[in-house]
Amino acid sequence: MAYLHNAWYVAALSTEVGGEALFNRKILGLSMLLYRRGDGTPVALRDRCPHRFVPLHMGKRVGDDVVCPYHGLRFDCTGKCVESPHGDGHIPRAAVVQAFPAVERHGFIWVWPGDASKADPADVPDYSLLDEGHANSKGWAYLHMKANYEILVDNVMDLSHVDHVHGPLLNTAGKLSPQIPKVIEDGKHVSVRWEWHQDPPMGFFSPFLPTPGAGAEHHVEVVWTAPGTMLLTVGAVQGSKDPADGLLSWDHHLMTPESEASTHYFFATRRNWLVEDAELNRMKLDGTVAAFSTEDKPIIEAAQEEMGTTDLWSLKPVLLSSDPAPVRARRVLSQLIETEGAQRRG
Amino acid sequence: MAYLHNAWYVAALSTEVGGEALFNRKILGLSMLLYRRGDGTPVALRDRCPHRFVPLHMGKRVGDDVVCPYHGLRFDCTGKCVESPHGDGHIPRAAVVQAFPAVERHGFIWVWPGDASKADPADVPDYSLLDEGHANSKGWAYLHMKANYEILVDNVMDLSHVDHVHGPLLNTAGKLSPQIPKVIEDGKHVSVRWEWHQDPPMGFFSPFLPTPGAGAEHHVEVVWTAPGTMLLTVGAVQGSKDPADGLLSWDHHLMTPESEASTHYFFATRRNWLVEDAELNRMKLDGTVAAFSTEDKPIIEAAQEEMGTTDLWSLKPVLLSSDPAPVRARRVLSQLIETEGAQRRG
Amino acid sequence: MAYLHNAWYVAALSTEVGGEALFNRKILGLSMLLYRRGDGTPVALRDRCPHRFVPLHMGKRVGDDVVCPYHGLRFDCTGKCVESPHGDGHIPRAAVVQAFPAVERHGFIWVWPGDASKADPADVPDYSLLDEGHANSKGWAYLHMKANYEILVDNVMDLSHVDHVHGPLLNTAGKLSPQIPKVIEDGKHVSVRWEWHQDPPMGFFSPFLPTPGAGAEHHVEVVWTAPGTMLLTVGAVQGSKDPADGLLSWDHHLMTPESEASTHYFFATRRNWLVEDAELNRMKLDGTVAAFSTEDKPIIEAAQEEMGTTDLWSLKPVLLSSDPAPVRARRVLSQLIETEGAQRRG
Repeated sequence: MAYLHNAWYVAALSTEVGGEALFNRKILGLSMLLYRRGDGTPVALRDRCPHRFVPLHMGKRVGDDVVCPYHGLRFDCTGKCVESPHGDGHIPRAAVVQAFPAVERHGFIWVWPGDASKADPADVPDYSLLDEGHANSKGWAYLHMKANYEILVDNVMDLSHVDHVHGPLLNTAGKLSPQIPKVIEDGKHVSVRWEWHQDPPMGFFSPFLPTPGAGAEHHVEVVWTAPGTMLLTVGAVQGSKDPADGLLSWDHHLMTPESEASTHYFFATRRNWLVEDAELNRMKLDGTVAAFSTEDKPIIEAAQEEMGTTDLWSLKPVLLSSDPAPVRARRVLSQLIETEGAQRRG
Repeated sequence: MAYLHNAWYVAALSTEVGGEALFNRKILGLSMLLYRRGDGTPVALRDRCPHRFVPLHMGKRVGDDVVCPYHGLRFDCTGKCVESPHGDGHIPRAAVVQAFPAVERHGFIWVWPGDASKADPADVPDYSLLDEGHANSKGWAYLHMKANYEILVDNVMDLSHVDHVHGPLLNTAGKLSPQIPKVIEDGKHVSVRWEWHQDPPMGFFSPFLPTPGAGAEHHVEVVWTAPGTMLLTVGAVQGSKDPADGLLSWDHHLMTPESEASTHYFFATRRNWLVEDAELNRMKLDGTVAAFSTEDKPIIEAAQEEMGTTDLWSLKPVLLSSDPAPVRARRVLSQLIETEGAQRRG
Repeated sequence: MAYLHNAWYVAALSTEVGGEALFNRKILGLSMLLYRRGDGTPVALRDRCPHRFVPLHMGKRVGDDVVCPYHGLRFDCTGKCVESPHGDGHIPRAAVVQAFPAVERHGFIWVWPGDASKADPADVPDYSLLDEGHANSKGWAYLHMKANYEILVDNVMDLSHVDHVHGPLLNTAGKLSPQIPKVIEDGKHVSVRWEWHQDPPMGFFSPFLPTPGAGAEHHVEVVWTAPGTMLLTVGAVQGSKDPADGLLSWDHHLMTPESEASTHYFFATRRNWLVEDAELNRMKLDGTVAAFSTEDKPIIEAAQEEMGTTDLWSLKPVLLSSDPAPVRARRVLSQLIETEGAQRRG
């Protein structure tokens, strides 16, 4: 299976990588060691010593360096071996651990698994909505999914499933499926938008609208950025044509492949109402994550198991009117992977 | 591994598929959805929606139809999509779930995984002994076996193992192994028969004979029908040459491959004595199933593990005088599979 | 993966194979049945009946023979079928179980998985130190490791890891890593030796030296014999140049591949001090085995998982000054395997 390597992927929530800890996670099939320098900036190294391939996260920190637990080789945070207790201390030229560009943005640690010379932090998707707003208006979460990341992108890019899959909190009362949503493709982005009237409104919004439980104008827009991150803006408004006058939730869905058939699902959300209410904040985050875990996850993992390792297209899926957005995202990604492969082969 | 596809296989006990339930089971490597129409007749569909491959058994019944839980496509019991909530409701021509011919006979639901145009319910093996007799003289059971179905057929076709494997209930006291059992091959059937005197009789019969515990004439006959169903008639009689004057048990062993190395083992039995005795009925069924589970199963599963995925013949098994019946059944099946493959290739 | 087949491998501790028991273990990917004749001498047979491939260890002993539990074939301890309860009792010529040369030496049962005509008990490595000495000065143990046997040989042949991996009992205080240990290769053997002063001494020795806790001269020597057995002699002495005047422990590390990625790790040890002290004996053995289990094992198994099934050399490991001994042992073994393969191919 081919991945897009020259891209920023979320490797961890900022909160997952503690001050002194050596954290490890497999992404794109590669074991990675993640930790923080003394100044807090993130480091991403291949999680294997080049001598005998022991995972370095089993070792220990010495300042900003990491020491392999097996034979004591010490590596700095660029992956260079800086100390060997062996013989006269000579350090073989090949004693280097692969280092990955890493930056921390918007509550996530992002890594670049490809050609480091092409890594530009400016290419991290702009999710700066998460940098603003009251702390009690925002939340982050992590889920592990036994499904391919493109299937999980499909799920968010085709929100018609919300009509069918989700319970009272997120349900859209059959309003999305009949629509042919507007899809815009723009280079590395694909966006899709639905608008509808719902009465009573989504459970998510209903109690917080000016007239709780009364009909409201809704919209949802998802913007996908290759390879697998999406910003979903969903809103409800009463007595106005302008969604900005209403309630808005900005939901970030960020997919990082662990392997062909498993994904690290990162999620972050912010709302624009009762922004100081910590209890509402927790309930909204927990409720949303519970919906993913108990409503989306079993269905998607069962589909993955049924598909096995077979590629979606080779199974000749029937396409519906809601499929253009996920299909376009798949095509853009496929093209990017092909181009990258061609460049690598020269 | 090649299966015979144009054949009736038991997919479930009748009692496993409840009135309104969506039941699923993998047979011949295919996930199948089994359910009943309102009139009780069975339906067998591929257990995957053709849109995004979610197992349909996770969905819900609407009348005789089934609705996919993911995007709400509704399929009738021929597998045809009859309703789409998407866009203008247009139903893509390819929105079809594979349907399998299914019939209910003799307490089992039978499906035909191959070319539907060739499926004739008249070809379901005639196990109508199970349709007659008092309810308390009959019983059905299901076991899952981590072994190839042909190995399990071998086990029933070569009953000399009963001398060695089974405890007091089923033991045949070494009477079968010395015999060269009579084998008759007839098109799609192979039958094998043993006759012997046993004193005391098989534990199974002993207490119910006219003179309990005294010697009796025994016989057992197994008739195999391709691909993997067997009717085993076993009897004991005292003071008569005619087995029909004695005790008889009709044991049906029906093997359906789940995968190359696992099998759905269906069993049904009927007896001709104390036919109204519910407690005896339960004890006889439970005792027999316990014997399969604790005596045959560990040995056969261990042999399967030792053989791995290697074909029996490529391991060059030593053949004994009791092997002609299972070997003939294997040859008939092998020929049928070859013929079917040749027909498919044209 | 290629193994050296014409070699003696430890299949079991002597104590693992009880008087009447049928013991089974997989070595070099082959299921083996191990048991003892009435006179106590060991028998090693392929653990599969040649008829239907049931593991023979599930059967029963009759004198020095073993009877298959499935159809009652009886095999003598050369693997020859000596009784069949089938038909007229005729024994097919092919009814033979593969037998492996087996000898018991030094507290282990050794088997020869290759060409039996080449098996010479004189080639069992001489670990007769284990045959002498007080019973309370010696001990044997078995561990299962999820790692390739060559990685485990590397671990013992490069003891510089002891500086880094081990806790107080075995720690060598950084004294080994700076040394370029002396390596001698001699046909099928590779030996490696380190000498150093340590103050305080190794925890292993410290309380038993003339001046407990005071500095002592240490040495350790490992002699590897192909394919994977090592005798490690480690000592500490105060006030003498001659290690023989001090404390000595003879540690035998014997690796038998179970599969490509798992190993049976046999261990035996003897010491030359307080040789009658049963409690010290148990504490020393338990402490050493605990060190392997909690200190070496997690690191080595994690490295194996990180390497997967990839060959060490294809991963281009960085080599350190302590690597010549394990590298030479790998080369000798690799050459022996190549020669054996060439001979087999003619």
